Amino acid sequence: MATTTTTGKGLEGIVAANSGICWIDGEAGVLAYRGIDIHELAQKSTFEETTYLLWNGKLPTASEQAIFDRALAASRLIDPRIVEMLRSFPSTATPMEILRTAVSALSFYDPDEHDNTHDANVRKSYRLTSQIAMIVAIYDRLRKGKEIVEADPSLSHAANFLWMLNGEKPSETATKTLDIALILHADHELTASTFAARVIAATLSDIHSAVTGAIGALKGPLHGGANEGVMRLLFAIEKAGVDPVVYVKDMLARKEKIMGFGHRVYKTEDPRATHLRKMSEQLSKDAGLEKYYDWSRAIELYIKQDKGLNANVDFYSASTYTMLGIDVDLFTPIFAISRIAGWAAHVIEQLDDNRLIRPRADYIGPAYPNPWVPVEERE
Amino acid sequence: MATTTTTGKGLEGIVAANSGICWIDGEAGVLAYRGIDIHELAQKSTFEETTYLLWNGKLPTASEQAIFDRALAASRLIDPRIVEMLRSFPSTATPMEILRTAVSALSFYDPDEHDNTHDANVRKSYRLTSQIAMIVAIYDRLRKGKEIVEADPSLSHAANFLWMLNGEKPSETATKTLDIALILHADHELTASTFAARVIAATLSDIHSAVTGAIGALKGPLHGGANEGVMRLLFAIEKAGVDPVVYVKDMLARKEKIMGFGHRVYKTEDPRATHLRKMSEQLSKDAGLEKYYDWSRAIELYIKQDKGLNANVDFYSASTYTMLGIDVDLFTPIFAISRIAGWAAHVIEQLDDNRLIRPRADYIGPAYPNPWVPVEERE
Repeated sequence: MATTTTTGKGLEGIVAANSGICWIDGEAGVLAYRGIDIHELAQKSTFEETTYLLWNGKLPTASEQAIFDRALAASRLIDPRIVEMLRSFPSTATPMEILRTAVSALSFYDPDEHDNTHDANVRKSYRLTSQIAMIVAIYDRLRKGKEIVEADPSLSHAANFLWMLNGEKPSETATKTLDIALILHADHELTASTFAARVIAATLSDIHSAVTGAIGALKGPLHGGANEGVMRLLFAIEKAGVDPVVYVKDMLARKEKIMGFGHRVYKTEDPRATHLRKMSEQLSKDAGLEKYYDWSRAIELYIKQDKGLNANVDFYSASTYTMLGIDVDLFTPIFAISRIAGWAAHVIEQLDDNRLIRPRADYIGPAYPNPWVPVEERE
Repeated sequence: MATTTTTGKGLEGIVAANSGICWIDGEAGVLAYRGIDIHELAQKSTFEETTYLLWNGKLPTASEQAIFDRALAASRLIDPRIVEMLRSFPSTATPMEILRTAVSALSFYDPDEHDNTHDANVRKSYRLTSQIAMIVAIYDRLRKGKEIVEADPSLSHAANFLWMLNGEKPSETATKTLDIALILHADHELTASTFAARVIAATLSDIHSAVTGAIGALKGPLHGGANEGVMRLLFAIEKAGVDPVVYVKDMLARKEKIMGFGHRVYKTEDPRATHLRKMSEQLSKDAGLEKYYDWSRAIELYIKQDKGLNANVDFYSASTYTMLGIDVDLFTPIFAISRIAGWAAHVIEQLDDNRLIRPRADYIGPAYPNPWVPVEERE
């Protein structure tokens, strides 16, 4: 294979696509969508505006934003057969299996299913963005034996999700916190789920296939599952009633992995962690329930000092989501509720200048030709 | 990004994994599973033996094969809730959307769902291999208003599929033809669907996520959909009643793509095409229905002479499957029925020595820092 380039495992440091969506400078700790720093977006933008930016490459004017918001709110209609399907799923299935299956089924009812043009994929992206959030909320209500809450088109994306999840209008703080979390998670360049989405889309398959595959990748504990692991650690510390640093030291002595630290790309603090730490601290104080934040902070300082590892996006999202009253097994689905913005942007970008993504393997098996031998001669 | 390697689009010529499963020499036109030439396997092996080879790296002894065959046949049990779900799907959904959704739902009922060890994934692979074929057959019966046919554990994998599809015991020729087609399609190194499966599995997500994503990739016309395109061409020629070469010349003059020719990897004849051409010819003669083969052959010779392109695996599988009485929209699902053998082998190999697959993008968007500007200042 003289024409192939051998790489490290996991395509580390290999450029797999040209992309104008997300800029990451891992050395400097910079994350930017369409060149705009994530800190500016977290402070000044909304999830809807950020999604417009990711899809269109520029910030919307007031009228563009109004059209976009209306289209997103108008897509808060889910086929009743999807709801029936959700009712039929067993209570033992996990939310990410449910979401993967339901999103795959959304294509059955999408009016643009057989249209893979740019404009059709934008329309499908509105629906996917609205409906992934709805599926998560509806399924959580169903499994708790509660009535489904109808979508409210007058609410923002974040507020509507909390409304459909909890059946009460969310506070401004809760809405703002979730909105910022959605902005922070909306894209991260060729992370595994986004890369899976592009590999699938590049066969000219449909965006539902790409997003279904991306949800499957996000389900993995090395990707979307990490903040669940962080929260389970905090709960374990609570149950054990011991000092969090002592607990973590014991885990490390047993060679157990502490979730929420380090990142393949960032060598400094993950810029998203900065905001999530701040929100976790604020929510703790507001609620008078400071233990999860305090323990997180103690663990963060210890791991930084002992291992030189920085907290990543997952570390403080755990306590933040818990203080918003969200169940631990919904953390990864909430990641999907946000990342659909990035997945859609990447699928559309891939299709605008497509080429099949088909790498090679370095063959390490039995030498060719390895003869087929009759069964009686085999060992 | 000083540490990144810039590549051509589509990861062409980039090694993304070490793999001991499939050897392809594109220059020499060689395909081998575990070092054994595809021509030997097509002539001497069975799909079951080939699957054992792909999963275990060696040909089975008689007792190993017997155990394997029993495990595969014993997995021909599908949860009745999956069948109910298939009944609820709309008739407008395509078979690949159905298959993608149903395979995603299989995880709900898999007893090993929360076990991602090597042995558990082998057990899940038996079930996926048996049940993907069953889902395709059951769904085709349902959409035609026919009774579901119970699986017959005494039949081979290929024969059981034809039995469940058609409700009558298949001829030896039909069984053998499908069995060889399944062997030929069982693996092809890091093709887009297999690569998608490995990207998803490498997050430590479950094999159902990986296979669901792979089905989504296979659905794309640049991957699994090509033989459907070939058959639609042959039907269009039939309907137009014109000479096939004239028809194809007209298409080329209109810059339309003729499906089933050329391959990213093979520079010679696709070694799988050799067998499918032979089977197509034989079935044509047996059935006294030679037109599809004759037209295919005429088109093949013309494209070879005019464009220098060789027929690939998809070109003769079209007429072969049609002569087996299989509907055109089941061609890609049948590809999945075979390729699950390779997907499973690759997922298990990936997990045996895992690393997250996370490449980088070359950023071509607005320069950083691109300031966020207030809405009233935007254009």
